[in-house]
Amino acid sequence: MLYVVGLGLADEKDITVRGLEAVQQCDRIYLEAYTSILLCEREKLEQFYGKAVVIADRELVESGSDDILEGAETLNIAFLVVGDPFGATTHTDLIIRARDRNIPVEVIHNASIMNAIGACGLQLYNFGQCVSLVFFTDTWRPASFYDRVAENRAIGLHTLMLLDIKVKEQSIENMARGRRIYEPPRYMTVKTACEQMLEIADAKIAAGETPCYTQDTLAVGVGRVGSREQVIVAGTLRSLMEAEMGPPLHSMVVLGDRVHPLELEYMKYYATDPAAIQALIDEKEGR
Amino acid sequence: MLYVVGLGLADEKDITVRGLEAVQQCDRIYLEAYTSILLCEREKLEQFYGKAVVIADRELVESGSDDILEGAETLNIAFLVVGDPFGATTHTDLIIRARDRNIPVEVIHNASIMNAIGACGLQLYNFGQCVSLVFFTDTWRPASFYDRVAENRAIGLHTLMLLDIKVKEQSIENMARGRRIYEPPRYMTVKTACEQMLEIADAKIAAGETPCYTQDTLAVGVGRVGSREQVIVAGTLRSLMEAEMGPPLHSMVVLGDRVHPLELEYMKYYATDPAAIQALIDEKEGR
Repeated sequence: MLYVVGLGLADEKDITVRGLEAVQQCDRIYLEAYTSILLCEREKLEQFYGKAVVIADRELVESGSDDILEGAETLNIAFLVVGDPFGATTHTDLIIRARDRNIPVEVIHNASIMNAIGACGLQLYNFGQCVSLVFFTDTWRPASFYDRVAENRAIGLHTLMLLDIKVKEQSIENMARGRRIYEPPRYMTVKTACEQMLEIADAKIAAGETPCYTQDTLAVGVGRVGSREQVIVAGTLRSLMEAEMGPPLHSMVVLGDRVHPLELEYMKYYATDPAAIQALIDEKEGR
Repeated sequence: MLYVVGLGLADEKDITVRGLEAVQQCDRIYLEAYTSILLCEREKLEQFYGKAVVIADRELVESGSDDILEGAETLNIAFLVVGDPFGATTHTDLIIRARDRNIPVEVIHNASIMNAIGACGLQLYNFGQCVSLVFFTDTWRPASFYDRVAENRAIGLHTLMLLDIKVKEQSIENMARGRRIYEPPRYMTVKTACEQMLEIADAKIAAGETPCYTQDTLAVGVGRVGSREQVIVAGTLRSLMEAEMGPPLHSMVVLGDRVHPLELEYMKYYATDPAAIQALIDEKEGR
């Protein structure tokens, strides 16, 4: 049996009871650790489960899935995923491979950023498609995210921005030389996200277009959602560049105009400028 | 302290370890049981927690929040929510009220239909806004959901349809006479959802419009997502009307045209007509 178990967002105790019971009866346990990270160390998980945990990097998951599934016809294998198991395409791929080998699969769900973002007070049914924002490099500054934000904003919807994480990445030089030396992990901050977004908006202006957001557009930055150290800050993109969000992981929501006064009421609690949010509530309510 | 604890989707063991530890140290425990339902009985929860659980109906939550929060300055109160705490506006309202009284609040997240719907193989970043579908009555057949599905489909996105549940509803007669007699609970099936959707499409056609979906549009019906008895069926709206989805709760996804071949590959496993899905994959891949 292959158990694909969501770990939730913060620490070892965010696993569900059903998930914990499954993991504890497994013969091998893998932790997928490159599409997201848990806010606690592997050792803590091992102690909590009373079992060894193997870190599964991109290489193992994408090329070594036969190793992961080895013997799963008779053994119990756990594949642990931060958040919910269906957060990344890679995991559905592993399930397809298991099915092809007639290995029974049980998925155990958990919270992920896709629903826990509700913690900022914006209602999930007011979100459009979510968007990934990757680190710009000197030579690659992709603006494709912009079109999706624009599609959402055109119909008044919020956009959840998932911010890039780079784990176990090689420099171009090391990759070229085949050296397995990895760069330190990097996690995109809300500050960098705002900078990259505004760079694209500036490029639109330079091209004579009106961008779908500006530095005055309202957004919410979140850090370590779901943990006890969660930070939420609501304000303009400009103000979020100065906000103290603390350590990773960060995410962000760009608001849509269909925002409801009740959503703003909740957001006000986290606002850099509560009076500005109140003014918007008053305007929405026609006061 | 007010703990707002997500219970996940299926049974008593879907609570997180952190959630369970919080609940077990609470002095009073409420279970919100009108915006969704758990697939297990209250007694099972009580046995599992070793604590009494009070069912909180709409009346108690919306008018009696002072009763719920009574003494929370010194006592520990748990408010249990099926799925994730931020699934319904009502719960954010309770948190605002607690904050206004300076009661500390801790939210413990869990899976909800909003992310667990990934179980059907469709990628969450290809979903637009989600839509609620309410039971039509003789005199009230609201088509407002249609516009949101149309907005999503216009940009190629999938739509999660949340299907109505009616719990502890009064008949108009009993309401008029002030009799606290309640109708048996009703949960919208995928079949009813398809019928209502196609009724609105027919009305568009009758009005000379081209509807944004037809009986040949692909969709996925899901029953009891996240439980071991989960059922997933993929097919046209017409074929889903005949599909055996089993007992509640049901949800549905209407596909968008931006669907990726890998999503279809996963869906094929659940398809009423796998050959038709394969043909679509071939078409997408230009074969």
